Amino acid sequence: MNDVLQQLDGILAQRKLADPASSYVASLHHKGLNKILEKVGEEATEVILAAKDVNDDPAALLGEVADLWFHTLVMLSHLNLDSAAVLECLQRRVGVSGLEEKASRG
Amino acid sequence: MNDVLQQLDGILAQRKLADPASSYVASLHHKGLNKILEKVGEEATEVILAAKDVNDDPAALLGEVADLWFHTLVMLSHLNLDSAAVLECLQRRVGVSGLEEKASRG
Amino acid sequence: MNDVLQQLDGILAQRKLADPASSYVASLHHKGLNKILEKVGEEATEVILAAKDVNDDPAALLGEVADLWFHTLVMLSHLNLDSAAVLECLQRRVGVSGLEEKASRG
Amino acid sequence: MNDVLQQLDGILAQRKLADPASSYVASLHHKGLNKILEKVGEEATEVILAAKDVNDDPAALLGEVADLWFHTLVMLSHLNLDSAAVLECLQRRVGVSGLEEKASRG
Repeated sequence: MNDVLQQLDGILAQRKLADPASSYVASLHHKGLNKILEKVGEEATEVILAAKDVNDDPAALLGEVADLWFHTLVMLSHLNLDSAAVLECLQRRVGVSGLEEKASRG
Repeated sequence: MNDVLQQLDGILAQRKLADPASSYVASLHHKGLNKILEKVGEEATEVILAAKDVNDDPAALLGEVADLWFHTLVMLSHLNLDSAAVLECLQRRVGVSGLEEKASRG
Repeated sequence: MNDVLQQLDGILAQRKLADPASSYVASLHHKGLNKILEKVGEEATEVILAAKDVNDDPAALLGEVADLWFHTLVMLSHLNLDSAAVLECLQRRVGVSGLEEKASRG
Repeated sequence: MNDVLQQLDGILAQRKLADPASSYVASLHHKGLNKILEKVGEEATEVILAAKDVNDDPAALLGEVADLWFHTLVMLSHLNLDSAAVLECLQRRVGVSGLEEKASRG
């Protein structure tokens, strides 16, 4: 389970080079950064709505969070970055002193 | 590196029970779901802005993505869910047929 | 020019009762509050992106702000509210002491 | 009531030149476009949350919409634009054929 993000990074790197007519990911890259960021914004809104409706459908919330993370990974791939660097950021926060670094940043 | 999300799930579960006066995470839980969702929305906006400014500061974008993922983890923790279920969602999509399931969902 | 919002309130009240198959506004009401809020979130993201790109296309930004306001009016109409009450809120802030009330709210 | 937006445009133009230490609007201009856009994103999220909770507090929703419009006006002012141009956009849509132009744009 743990290496899902790494697997996704690899798949997304391949799909970046695929035919936009047959690959959703390639079509996003083809449309460009703004289109990818619109998707990030949309999925964030859908996470918020699904969280407000979580009692009706908890599984929907998990799917929306997956969609949000997925599109942030596409964004990173578009900019030649990947999830490893994000996990390093999170690791550093955990490592420093639990979550105190974050706490200090508000 | 891979188990950062699992570590975070564990730390967040502990912090949920901490004193809101001394823990940022506990203070978010204390303020409630809407406050946590406001943070998710804020961090999504900051990701979008940092992506538009990525040439000026690529590291800032990684930090903002980490902040966004972090606050979605706090949200999941608030609702008694965790990152494992999100990774399962992502895994299922990767597993079915590369990313085609997602492609079919638009 | 000044009564555009009032005109829109009136038109939106009519369109709320129209056939969802022929009216965009009626189709939004038919899909429900979450769909309308998804549009508000989308348009807010598009405003932010257009503002970052304003040097390339200032007219696009004005169009996106119009879209955002438009969809907030549809939302208000869905909830049996209208722009007059929002303008009263803004008026009260202007009236009290310039914008100091807002300043005090942060 | 109708000229509230025009009044606000005028007040915002004055406040743009005020001391950031004493004026909320001037402090936003001083912090720059990204800070103003963060506020637009925050207020959009707060509108969405207030709309989901409208049965608990309808007045809160009106206040959040006012906050969202207010910060879009500050953004326009920052970019040397104003509400009149947005109202013209909305007017044109109303004028063309009710809301059909918008309908055709999806």
